[in-house]
Amino acid sequence: YGKNTIKFLRLHKEGKKHFVKEVEVCTHLRLTSAQEYLDGNNSLVIPTDTMKNIVLVLAKKNGIPTLEQFAMDICKHFMTTFCQVAYVKTYVQEVPWQRLHENGVAHVHSFICVPDGIRFCEAEQCRNGPLVVFAGIKDLKLMKTTQSGFEGFYKNEHTTLPERNDRILCGELFCKWSYGECSDFDFDCIWTKVRECILEAFSGPPDCGEYSPSYQKTVNRIQMCILSKVSQVQVIEVILNNTFYNVVDMKNLGLTNDKEVLVPVEAPYGSCACTLARKKFLEA
Amino acid sequence: YGKNTIKFLRLHKEGKKHFVKEVEVCTHLRLTSAQEYLDGNNSLVIPTDTMKNIVLVLAKKNGIPTLEQFAMDICKHFMTTFCQVAYVKTYVQEVPWQRLHENGVAHVHSFICVPDGIRFCEAEQCRNGPLVVFAGIKDLKLMKTTQSGFEGFYKNEHTTLPERNDRILCGELFCKWSYGECSDFDFDCIWTKVRECILEAFSGPPDCGEYSPSYQKTVNRIQMCILSKVSQVQVIEVILNNTFYNVVDMKNLGLTNDKEVLVPVEAPYGSCACTLARKKFLEA
Amino acid sequence: YGKNTIKFLRLHKEGKKHFVKEVEVCTHLRLTSAQEYLDGNNSLVIPTDTMKNIVLVLAKKNGIPTLEQFAMDICKHFMTTFCQVAYVKTYVQEVPWQRLHENGVAHVHSFICVPDGIRFCEAEQCRNGPLVVFAGIKDLKLMKTTQSGFEGFYKNEHTTLPERNDRILCGELFCKWSYGECSDFDFDCIWTKVRECILEAFSGPPDCGEYSPSYQKTVNRIQMCILSKVSQVQVIEVILNNTFYNVVDMKNLGLTNDKEVLVPVEAPYGSCACTLARKKFLEA
Amino acid sequence: YGKNTIKFLRLHKEGKKHFVKEVEVCTHLRLTSAQEYLDGNNSLVIPTDTMKNIVLVLAKKNGIPTLEQFAMDICKHFMTTFCQVAYVKTYVQEVPWQRLHENGVAHVHSFICVPDGIRFCEAEQCRNGPLVVFAGIKDLKLMKTTQSGFEGFYKNEHTTLPERNDRILCGELFCKWSYGECSDFDFDCIWTKVRECILEAFSGPPDCGEYSPSYQKTVNRIQMCILSKVSQVQVIEVILNNTFYNVVDMKNLGLTNDKEVLVPVEAPYGSCACTLARKKFLEA
Repeated sequence: YGKNTIKFLRLHKEGKKHFVKEVEVCTHLRLTSAQEYLDGNNSLVIPTDTMKNIVLVLAKKNGIPTLEQFAMDICKHFMTTFCQVAYVKTYVQEVPWQRLHENGVAHVHSFICVPDGIRFCEAEQCRNGPLVVFAGIKDLKLMKTTQSGFEGFYKNEHTTLPERNDRILCGELFCKWSYGECSDFDFDCIWTKVRECILEAFSGPPDCGEYSPSYQKTVNRIQMCILSKVSQVQVIEVILNNTFYNVVDMKNLGLTNDKEVLVPVEAPYGSCACTLARKKFLEA
Repeated sequence: YGKNTIKFLRLHKEGKKHFVKEVEVCTHLRLTSAQEYLDGNNSLVIPTDTMKNIVLVLAKKNGIPTLEQFAMDICKHFMTTFCQVAYVKTYVQEVPWQRLHENGVAHVHSFICVPDGIRFCEAEQCRNGPLVVFAGIKDLKLMKTTQSGFEGFYKNEHTTLPERNDRILCGELFCKWSYGECSDFDFDCIWTKVRECILEAFSGPPDCGEYSPSYQKTVNRIQMCILSKVSQVQVIEVILNNTFYNVVDMKNLGLTNDKEVLVPVEAPYGSCACTLARKKFLEA
Repeated sequence: YGKNTIKFLRLHKEGKKHFVKEVEVCTHLRLTSAQEYLDGNNSLVIPTDTMKNIVLVLAKKNGIPTLEQFAMDICKHFMTTFCQVAYVKTYVQEVPWQRLHENGVAHVHSFICVPDGIRFCEAEQCRNGPLVVFAGIKDLKLMKTTQSGFEGFYKNEHTTLPERNDRILCGELFCKWSYGECSDFDFDCIWTKVRECILEAFSGPPDCGEYSPSYQKTVNRIQMCILSKVSQVQVIEVILNNTFYNVVDMKNLGLTNDKEVLVPVEAPYGSCACTLARKKFLEA
Repeated sequence: YGKNTIKFLRLHKEGKKHFVKEVEVCTHLRLTSAQEYLDGNNSLVIPTDTMKNIVLVLAKKNGIPTLEQFAMDICKHFMTTFCQVAYVKTYVQEVPWQRLHENGVAHVHSFICVPDGIRFCEAEQCRNGPLVVFAGIKDLKLMKTTQSGFEGFYKNEHTTLPERNDRILCGELFCKWSYGECSDFDFDCIWTKVRECILEAFSGPPDCGEYSPSYQKTVNRIQMCILSKVSQVQVIEVILNNTFYNVVDMKNLGLTNDKEVLVPVEAPYGSCACTLARKKFLEA
């Protein structure tokens, strides 16, 4: 049980310069007891309202240096304060405020919301177990208008999809990675690096791109890029929900449509998910 | 990988009387191969477009006798037709069309959408494993305006919640149960029976209700009621996301508000989840 | 300016029997002044927070006998209390709680949310003008699986739609009507009557239905039915947003699909809106 | 009547460089006839399916040089092609794809979705009337963490809001402007200029900001800035839906919260709308 979508803004000031971190926190506990379910005995139950208070108090006291550090702070607090807690999990998601700029000059206290990929993290711990930290990005929508195809697939009597070597690849990405034995990482820097890997592996070189023979291969390319360039990432899960773009058939309207007008097919949509781990991580 | 939200309507006619079943299907596969990820070799990949075709063809050929039967049909088809499939999972959700009635007379072909709890089911199978079937209800919003409290809970310096013995209990329910070794069940009848159990266990006797000392106890009461009254259910998971209603303090407006005007607090919201299984099922 | 989505629940008790009315209120004002915009002089500005307080206080004092009466109470309060108010408008929308029944017996304090058409109303008044009241229903989703067609329409080189005399008609209805010079109406009773008219005019007789040659004609039939059967309605606006259902072409899958499997096309969707008034109302 | 959310992507290539414009179009007509409503005679009705075809054909033939030009093209086509059309209105909204950059280098065919304010436009025409064009931006979320207050407002017994001279101002902006007698404007350039005016008027100078005594004054400042700097804008409507941020009272948790931790109040929310026109425009 727990408290979901605890929303708040942490404001930090350095002179006239303001820094904001607006987040949404979900914190869940599993207790060692069962009497609250069986007998309605609440004596060990930490109210979800108290959980909310604790999250706000920790934000006030420690600030939010990084989402990950804040999620770890919360888990540690519950584990060390309440001996009836058997397991704690905390999810933190960021509202994507960016500092406004006027003619290249950063504004001291004005911000704009730019939701081009939402940053989140998760920390969890079992009593007597390690504190595990995950980070991720979601709702990241990308498109490439060529250098994508799908050919040579398995066919039978239910196959009507034609082979294509030049289609639009458009999808919404969800990536979540584990830091394994988490130490003193620069989480902000790593997150930015992972995001760059995703954009690079998805799109290829700026002057020509790189051919994607399938969603599967693109997912794998993203994962391989992250694992090779970001050593702190131990396991990486990627989900690509893709929107297909149909070239409109204009023959009966007397026109030849050479991939100029396309219609997105939002339902049904394809989905491709894969989790990849380092070998040394699997062996451990 | 798979295809999500394959939406369609299956129309069935008996003379002038029409029957509709509109559903949303998600079908996911895991293949035995990895070459599509590693090498971009698609030769074993069943396109998600083919998956969609298969779902529609099965609906056309077999109809949708029950959601559960249809989900099983789909799983069986993939397992028996494609030897490269290692695992298949199918989720089916129903659009809640109800036959219209005029002055008590059922209309032959007119329907109204009544979303008071959405029915869904899931079937999954690993190669050489059993076909497992789940059913469920979601988005079921219930409220009781008394016979609910929360007292005697754990308190420390972060506790500000007062004890209450007469509060509003309002929540959105998600229930999902497993049929264990599934045989020839009357899935429609069981589903209706489970729904009745939920309403009954949530609200208590119509003339006086039954006191709920916590969300945890209410969740448990629902589970116990289902396990005792519906023998086909082996494991039952319940999630209760509750909206708290705050009695508005009107003192500074010169009024005494005796639980007459309350304001819903939609974020943050509490959440309570529990999974309960029959003993014999756990031993098996 | 104003306050939107003021959500609250009004609880009323008669002995052990509880009655709930949960609503969402939006109240907007226009002041006679402009100095708050031009000079930042707020001396006549009624804070939106005060507006919220007033709505809650009126709910506490008067209860919500009907949505319409409550909306009128709010408008009257602002007009009579604040001489700087030039115009006031209040919108009230209901959360569709229905009393639970167990084996036909009504529960004294348990409710279920059944969103099969949302009831709303609006009241507005200009200083020295009449208090005008509107009522309505929205998000009402209806479907008829036959007795609908579309033929004989205008054709040119951009027409590709085939004529059809047996299609599915499925749409979401929005209806809003004006009560003209509003007196002491039984608003609950009228609302129920209008809803029945909509269902009846949409679907036709229960044993055979009634043929709809177009969305336009169905909209008109609904309006004519309401105007003829509900004398208090002076003007009636109807918007029908329709979802088209495509019969899936299964020829290339080796099957004949006789309107058995259909796919909803949710975007783009057609929309048909019409406002109809009584003659005497137009003359007035 | 008409067709809503006609979604499509227009792809344009210059050598290896690709340009995308993904839009959502709504087109509505009013006919000179009434027989389709009264008699079900469809002979003058242009099917909404034909309307969709026309929009796609125009996109194919003319491309989408600017949203505004495209909306005008659609209106002109309906007015000149169909003499039964009495009125036509077209709304076009853009999916905010931005070209990807890698280390400062623009990618030839990869894009990312960045929804920081959605661009839209509208064109409408009555038979024998002028073609009127509007443009706008919506869903633009801005925040300033200081230089905002609300004091000296009207008070009575229902006022509980304290005066504040340092609060957070956070809101979602909707702006829509009219171009009056529209000629050969550079619509892309003007739209960018208006957006800059909004950001500048909302936030003030980057090093210190500018004090906002109310939402009303901020709305007016935005309007005055646009009217003074963008001569083509004749009428400007601005709606500011603001989210209030509550400083969490931590006294009972033993802490002093100096505007460090704040909780957003998303419902109810305040709304402030104002339409301002040039004097010469009003005289015309």
